Amino acid sequence: MEILGKHLLVEFTDCDRKALNDLKRMEKILLEAAQKAGATIVDSIFHLYNPHGVSGVIVIAESHMSIHTWPEYGYAAVDFFTCGERVDPWIACRYMNEQLGGSMNTREVKRGIPGDVDRVIPHKPDSETLPKKEVA
Amino acid sequence: MEILGKHLLVEFTDCDRKALNDLKRMEKILLEAAQKAGATIVDSIFHLYNPHGVSGVIVIAESHMSIHTWPEYGYAAVDFFTCGERVDPWIACRYMNEQLGGSMNTREVKRGIPGDVDRVIPHKPDSETLPKKEVA
Repeated sequence: MEILGKHLLVEFTDCDRKALNDLKRMEKILLEAAQKAGATIVDSIFHLYNPHGVSGVIVIAESHMSIHTWPEYGYAAVDFFTCGERVDPWIACRYMNEQLGGSMNTREVKRGIPGDVDRVIPHKPDSETLPKKEVA
Repeated sequence: MEILGKHLLVEFTDCDRKALNDLKRMEKILLEAAQKAGATIVDSIFHLYNPHGVSGVIVIAESHMSIHTWPEYGYAAVDFFTCGERVDPWIACRYMNEQLGGSMNTREVKRGIPGDVDRVIPHKPDSETLPKKEVA
């Protein structure tokens, strides 16, 4: 694979159930996790469901981080999708675990262009490979 | 695993590069994909990067859908994270492929509480399992 991103899929279990149903707390924890990991926050959405559960997504310059909580099971599904080497999603992951309590189960998935050999490829900062803008 | 969600990780390659750098088009396609799949859209964020690339996330009542594009490589990383049986993320996935052109490589990951035996468990609609609200 021509690797462009790293995607951590994390299952947090036996978490503090009250915290998992607290919109403001989930927002604070995920934003802090993104900052500690060195991510550049672009925008975020957090939503509290009826009767319970929170969904939150942060778009970062390096991709996104998300959380979905099932307070009734003490469970949260969290994703840390990052590209480049500047952000360390494992810092965000460990911080979330400290804040949520309980335990975590992680899977790391490479994201990019499928191929036989794994190698990391850079963003191309110039626009030479893109179609030229049309002149009106 | 006590399964609460289904997460499709999709690599779209050899896509229309111009489309991948068009914020409004990416927004329209992902929102339409969510609608066609039967998802309930809660809110969304789309962002165009400098020099190129689009990130977009839709929070849906059934979790989220996201896209990150690398127009310089004709590549997009797309996630369809859904819970429940009402939404079919494969419909969204096929629709995106039609719209973006090129080919797709999919991985389906189960999300939920780790365990030895796989079984789907429901959301618990009542609040009996949650801590009672504190009386002020």
